[in-house]
Amino acid sequence: MAETRQWRLASRPVGEPTMENFELVTVDRPEPDDGEVLVKTLYQSVDPYMRGRMRDAESYAEPWDVGEPMQAGVVGEVVESAADAFDEGDVVTGNLLWAEHAVADADELRAVDPDLGPVSTALGVLGMPGVTAYWGLLDVGDPKPGDTVVVSAAAGAVGSVVGQLARLNGARVVGTAGSDEKVAWLTDDLGFDAAINYKETDDLADAMAEACPDGVDVYFDNVGGPITDAVWQLLNERSRVAVCGQIALYNETEVPTGPRKLAKLIETRAKVEGFLVGDYQDRWGEALKRLSRFIREDELQYRENVVEGFENAPDAFLGLFEGENIGKQLVKVAEREE
Amino acid sequence: MAETRQWRLASRPVGEPTMENFELVTVDRPEPDDGEVLVKTLYQSVDPYMRGRMRDAESYAEPWDVGEPMQAGVVGEVVESAADAFDEGDVVTGNLLWAEHAVADADELRAVDPDLGPVSTALGVLGMPGVTAYWGLLDVGDPKPGDTVVVSAAAGAVGSVVGQLARLNGARVVGTAGSDEKVAWLTDDLGFDAAINYKETDDLADAMAEACPDGVDVYFDNVGGPITDAVWQLLNERSRVAVCGQIALYNETEVPTGPRKLAKLIETRAKVEGFLVGDYQDRWGEALKRLSRFIREDELQYRENVVEGFENAPDAFLGLFEGENIGKQLVKVAEREE
Repeated sequence: MAETRQWRLASRPVGEPTMENFELVTVDRPEPDDGEVLVKTLYQSVDPYMRGRMRDAESYAEPWDVGEPMQAGVVGEVVESAADAFDEGDVVTGNLLWAEHAVADADELRAVDPDLGPVSTALGVLGMPGVTAYWGLLDVGDPKPGDTVVVSAAAGAVGSVVGQLARLNGARVVGTAGSDEKVAWLTDDLGFDAAINYKETDDLADAMAEACPDGVDVYFDNVGGPITDAVWQLLNERSRVAVCGQIALYNETEVPTGPRKLAKLIETRAKVEGFLVGDYQDRWGEALKRLSRFIREDELQYRENVVEGFENAPDAFLGLFEGENIGKQLVKVAEREE
Repeated sequence: MAETRQWRLASRPVGEPTMENFELVTVDRPEPDDGEVLVKTLYQSVDPYMRGRMRDAESYAEPWDVGEPMQAGVVGEVVESAADAFDEGDVVTGNLLWAEHAVADADELRAVDPDLGPVSTALGVLGMPGVTAYWGLLDVGDPKPGDTVVVSAAAGAVGSVVGQLARLNGARVVGTAGSDEKVAWLTDDLGFDAAINYKETDDLADAMAEACPDGVDVYFDNVGGPITDAVWQLLNERSRVAVCGQIALYNETEVPTGPRKLAKLIETRAKVEGFLVGDYQDRWGEALKRLSRFIREDELQYRENVVEGFENAPDAFLGLFEGENIGKQLVKVAEREE
């Protein structure tokens, strides 16, 4: 019988995850039941939110079970179909497994049209991160022309789309990132008005104040921690903070502490709101339609950071916490068959 | 020439204000120009937000100048009028001075009808604190029937109205306060479902969890600090936090720190918003109308804590930070003339 490989959660990390938390397992390749298809993974996504699922604590995402395969966004090819909706050779995307092959219910998959562009974008700018950026910025952040919009992790899969969308909306855009190469990409290629390499900045508060002479009207936060502290002091009246992620805190073993933030909200009547892309399921298509138009019209750029080989998926995931990726972090698992 | 007394800001406090920050000065009684009236103070208000005005820092309220009289909400009697709108003997309210007499522009005063109830209520339940509670709860907190609403400083001028309004809206209401007497007033007289004496509680998080078995849907925060930390862990999906005050932090000399709070907002998609009663100027009358109806119908109770004598105004103010008051803290300065 044909086999396939899966990455399983070997143990729950304490603090920063390590390779020891992952286990590569070879299993029999599953067969699709009625209504299901067998998908061969072409690209697998690794995302910061996955750190939350490694934890044994109630959160917005169910914790993964130790000893079981982990889940991931996947773009793959249908290699065996027992469902009317898909034929062999179709390219699909959905939440499958950290696996070379997985069976999925046809209802839980979305078709990807390979003629529209690289299929990998279904995991990035035309997938979950793109939609996160789109609705998080436009619905929660609600930027107006002339606003100053700050985005943290601006060179990441979500942040890079947020900044460009804010620019397209007529905002002044400031980003933070962790290398000079990223900063150059933001300002030279993506049209950010300013970008701060937070790792090379002595005084984040000063640097942020300099980059935002008119204060901050919208803050799209992927990071939390000291970067967020620096933005906070600059919040304008009636400003909006869209809380998307707090990657700086995900590996903390103690309850993270920092300057208290609520008094500033009284002074400014600012609004702080968390959101999840899952709450925008019924507006997913609307976001994808506009994002793909922006790409076609060269208004929106994206980058992908591709690690080759399924065996390197945990490495790609761990790299997220080192800030190694520019743009969307992907694992290339296989080529299309044809 | 007739004289009057004023309390002036002698120096800016560092940490907790003391009597040394205040100076009692006797000055010539001012005379009204055209369009002005001379008001004799009957009651003066002291409020937590005044701590911010003693500070030399930009905030939502202008800082007071050292050596100058401080400002306060006042209910007074017109004793000399050079304005068409008011006659001698009229009772008025407005933002005047910490003073026995002050001149005010008639446009900046509102008439108080002594037949509707004690005139002192124009500084409390039928004044700024009542309107703060009304719009802060209904517009920002937005409670639904069956929601759990938590209010901190629940026995204060604002909190006691918030809790009762939440109850009238069909919510389960939980309050925090700093004495057993206050707790008894909340649960026995005001209809709170539960109240916590935070000063006598070993584990605030446990006590709060016990008082809110279904989590927290609306948190109206007057206090900040550890009480707010305890509520935070219980925030429900789509809950709302209305940030009205942070009295626990106003006297801090270092930047106050505490557990970071934004990650919880992602998990819950909670919204945190600061507000100022000044933003509801044009809806002030609507709030007063409903609040006075609730009082007439015995649906809304209030208490006043009255310190006698203008010379005791700073004491009354300092007592706010010790949690001495139940209900609205007032200074009775004079009797009406008639």
